[in-house]
Amino acid sequence: MARHLLLLVGLLLAVAGAAAASEAERASEEAAQHVLLPRPLVLELPTEERCVGEGGADEDAELRCASWRMAAEANNLAPWTAVPEDCAPHVRRYLTGPAYRSDLDLVAREASAYARAAAADSAAVGATSDSDAWVFDVDETLLSNLPYYAEHGYGLELFDHREFDKWVEKGEAPAIPSSLTLYREVRDLGFKTFLLTGRSEGHEAVTVDNLKREGFHEWDKLILRATADRKKTATAYKSEKRKEIEAEGYKILGNSGDQWSDLLGYSMSARSFKLPNPMYYIP
Amino acid sequence: MARHLLLLVGLLLAVAGAAAASEAERASEEAAQHVLLPRPLVLELPTEERCVGEGGADEDAELRCASWRMAAEANNLAPWTAVPEDCAPHVRRYLTGPAYRSDLDLVAREASAYARAAAADSAAVGATSDSDAWVFDVDETLLSNLPYYAEHGYGLELFDHREFDKWVEKGEAPAIPSSLTLYREVRDLGFKTFLLTGRSEGHEAVTVDNLKREGFHEWDKLILRATADRKKTATAYKSEKRKEIEAEGYKILGNSGDQWSDLLGYSMSARSFKLPNPMYYIP
Repeated sequence: MARHLLLLVGLLLAVAGAAAASEAERASEEAAQHVLLPRPLVLELPTEERCVGEGGADEDAELRCASWRMAAEANNLAPWTAVPEDCAPHVRRYLTGPAYRSDLDLVAREASAYARAAAADSAAVGATSDSDAWVFDVDETLLSNLPYYAEHGYGLELFDHREFDKWVEKGEAPAIPSSLTLYREVRDLGFKTFLLTGRSEGHEAVTVDNLKREGFHEWDKLILRATADRKKTATAYKSEKRKEIEAEGYKILGNSGDQWSDLLGYSMSARSFKLPNPMYYIP
Repeated sequence: MARHLLLLVGLLLAVAGAAAASEAERASEEAAQHVLLPRPLVLELPTEERCVGEGGADEDAELRCASWRMAAEANNLAPWTAVPEDCAPHVRRYLTGPAYRSDLDLVAREASAYARAAAADSAAVGATSDSDAWVFDVDETLLSNLPYYAEHGYGLELFDHREFDKWVEKGEAPAIPSSLTLYREVRDLGFKTFLLTGRSEGHEAVTVDNLKREGFHEWDKLILRATADRKKTATAYKSEKRKEIEAEGYKILGNSGDQWSDLLGYSMSARSFKLPNPMYYIP
């Protein structure tokens, strides 16, 4: 789209230059341009895609940023450290509007339908569901750090460990409602639940308090990042931990996380659920 | 959202019933409802998310269908056989408007940046790039079947093998422009290109003709589905073929496909690029 816009601007400049070159030829130049110039694709934007922006948002940026967000969710982007500056308004609108909630709800409903089917399958083959397990990430999966990110540009600012730690230590991250519903359902179906988080072991107490206050009362294991795991990528650390869970005899049937590094690697779950998160990327 | 709407409808029915029960109490009922009824969340949709629809599209469906499409792209959905009926208008608008093109362009640009970096890495370590390979799917990746799907509800109709075969046999599928650009760049960088398609071997000649006519002039191997592969899932068939490519000494550094079954399984590429496709799902 940017290319088309550049093309359009280039064409207009060329026309303007030509017209200025000879004032006398102006009329014929103008008459000719509709015939001579290729029809710029940028003008073919269908009107139904136009959104009423808060203060007239740039439609081109809106389109580009929606593509950026889609590419992030489909794991198509190279590792990124912050939301592209021109996409900050788009990301803010997405997170504070109904779309983020809608996306979260739909993923939770899909996970719930799968959990019920998987539990029924286990029951049908007479397998003890004692070994069926579900892995949940914590941040932006069970708990939301949106109040923190609202104060830090919704991912536009570079991640600040010290500031974020202060927020974590408050223990005030709210539950993501659809995740809480899913979590309770998965527990009720008999799944063992493993909470596998990138938070450090030093934050265990505050994380436990935060989770319980928000309605996550029981789990089978809360796995936090030990000092030895600090330098590993999340993909490596979480894969190792999932392998340990499997080695203990559990079958990981479901895995919910907002990062692809929660879901990919080895010892992958039978099915994974990628919750939306356009604010940050963890490799 | 549907839940909220149901809640809203339920509340309104309850109110209507109560009001009808006694005509005399009507005024006081109406005065009381603003106090008594919980505030339905559906009313909190921020205005900036409202899109000017072609003939006033249902905003709730728009939100729901955008979530459905996002979930499809993030591989969160259970296998599906057709676009949900109420999402057909959303999918049609997406495909015929600028968003599909924008999404395709962005994925191609990401792939291109990665291809250049990967080629430079190979050159830096003195590795012969003769073994660097890129796998491309064909349908909805290099070639577009949009003209066919435009005549068949853009994924709303159940897939009809016979009708689709007729279309394939015409050999008139246009190139996806951003994929053609990427393809040429990847070739120029020295990657070997493997075209790995679910099309049957019987369609080899017409596929070759179609690809060449659309600008894909050279490749290292075009792999089509043999009779023996017919009953395999695409994930299994394509994984097997990628394994064979690796066994021949190639390193698959990139893989472009519009289906997750083009990308997942084993012998996975170092990096994968999921092109958008809300029209159909292949397991």
